[in-house]
Amino acid sequence: MEDKYVIGIDLGGTKISGAIADFNGHIISKYTLPTKAQEGEHAVLDRIISVVEKIIEESKVEKEKIISIGIGSPGPLDPREGKIITTPNLPFKDFNIVKPLMDRFNMPVFLDNDANVAAIGEYTFGAGKGTNNMVFITVSTGIGGGAVLNGKIYRGNTYNALEIGHMTLKKDGPLCNCGNYGCAEALASGTAIGKGAIRELERNSNSSLENYEKITSYEVFEEAKKGDKVALNVLNRALSYLGICVANVITSFDPEMVIIGGGVSKGGHMVFEKVNEVVKERCFEAMYNSVRIVPAALGTDAGVKGAVALAIMESQ
Amino acid sequence: MEDKYVIGIDLGGTKISGAIADFNGHIISKYTLPTKAQEGEHAVLDRIISVVEKIIEESKVEKEKIISIGIGSPGPLDPREGKIITTPNLPFKDFNIVKPLMDRFNMPVFLDNDANVAAIGEYTFGAGKGTNNMVFITVSTGIGGGAVLNGKIYRGNTYNALEIGHMTLKKDGPLCNCGNYGCAEALASGTAIGKGAIRELERNSNSSLENYEKITSYEVFEEAKKGDKVALNVLNRALSYLGICVANVITSFDPEMVIIGGGVSKGGHMVFEKVNEVVKERCFEAMYNSVRIVPAALGTDAGVKGAVALAIMESQ
Repeated sequence: MEDKYVIGIDLGGTKISGAIADFNGHIISKYTLPTKAQEGEHAVLDRIISVVEKIIEESKVEKEKIISIGIGSPGPLDPREGKIITTPNLPFKDFNIVKPLMDRFNMPVFLDNDANVAAIGEYTFGAGKGTNNMVFITVSTGIGGGAVLNGKIYRGNTYNALEIGHMTLKKDGPLCNCGNYGCAEALASGTAIGKGAIRELERNSNSSLENYEKITSYEVFEEAKKGDKVALNVLNRALSYLGICVANVITSFDPEMVIIGGGVSKGGHMVFEKVNEVVKERCFEAMYNSVRIVPAALGTDAGVKGAVALAIMESQ
Repeated sequence: MEDKYVIGIDLGGTKISGAIADFNGHIISKYTLPTKAQEGEHAVLDRIISVVEKIIEESKVEKEKIISIGIGSPGPLDPREGKIITTPNLPFKDFNIVKPLMDRFNMPVFLDNDANVAAIGEYTFGAGKGTNNMVFITVSTGIGGGAVLNGKIYRGNTYNALEIGHMTLKKDGPLCNCGNYGCAEALASGTAIGKGAIRELERNSNSSLENYEKITSYEVFEEAKKGDKVALNVLNRALSYLGICVANVITSFDPEMVIIGGGVSKGGHMVFEKVNEVVKERCFEAMYNSVRIVPAALGTDAGVKGAVALAIMESQ
């Protein structure tokens, strides 16, 4: 496969990133366009096509050497049909995104949800390289996950496995975007951290967080690092629930490794210390002693590298 | 494999059951002895040996045709080493139970925890026959689980996968036997139902449950069926948590089928209705619509049949 290449597309609510890479994950060319989701599904599809055309052109790789395209998209999806069923930040509703791209570029196109794609990326090129059982958890505006079990991506019966952001952690907890109450995502995501801080400030005005016009998890982490008590309390609560989420994943999957990525994982040792503490408290000793909980290794290119890894995996 | 046989041993806190069966799960002979755990590990081992000897003798199957022994035991275990690490109702502590049986009977001996063994049993001979991804959940004094994923038992990295009784469902919930707080087992097991009723009676004496000397989940189900409000409330709370536990398992594993066994599942439609209701509320529609939540199909012989299925699976 030395002179073969694949294309990876990371489809997001704000941008569409694409890259051509070889089978070692070495990126030959890449290109990004804004998604402009408000322009509708066909406009977004056209922009995906433009990204693919641009990276093929810029790479100077002969078209015959490009064997497949992998796409990572927010879900829920039907990867077998190639359909995006629905997703809050993209215009697609029951939209087959695979077929028009296959027709246009005349090569196999593989679709999977962005958490699975990130899991495959970490397993193939990142922190999970060499493991046999690993779970990837992304904690940013939402919480998602993907698992490689016994060396293969585990998709489940309806391709929704590892929707761990919607694991219930508090029976009568806060309303989640999904319509249920007390989901991990409503308690421990970046969004939950930001909202928690705003709620806390309404009750307690003695915080350096008051100096910000807009409060997201980023500002909460910044002020917590400087010792702000409100920020520390908000984080402590959210990260306790993140720890419970991770502990429940470990108790369920007993993996060799849990890889945490996404914006909240950038909180670094504060995040990993708290998660480790909760996992130690709540998991069986044998599992706690064997599992490694580590940050994602793929950086800014994680999305496209994952999509590249998907294209490689599915082409083998 | 038509004229080959295997032995299955179900090792429990109160009894040791064994059977010889053919590869279709047809039982040729079976025998049960009380465990008498208080007599210590060597006495219990001797009783296991007696059970095996007795069923071989009674079956009249030639010894050469018996190819392996499967043992289901409470965990945690190290199935690769053949060790029982520790378990509350048996005397074994870091005890290798496989080696003495291999030496004595001169055939391979396979050990797995009773929930995995029950999962393999349901997959091979019971409700899960023909599925590809299924999770078995047992709800009795404790809560345990086992999963067959992509047609294979999924054990995890330390053989503790699907310890879902120790999934945290309530952060500051009741103390669990494992030392943590708010585990599914402490909220929704048969033991939790019994304890919940006793606690409720201390506060509220207007219940037909008062007529019993001893209250277990069985009495709570009986009185709930007759309309007793205290019993109904206790069950409603516990089964809500059982529903959340099942919902979290579905959200994590996205299985074709969830099979519920153990004493509490005998509560029948009350249990399955409530669990279904909670799963419908808390799981993504695609997963809820596709998953079947069904009672275990193997009856009183589930333990030995599972151990038989383990011996068959591991011999292939």
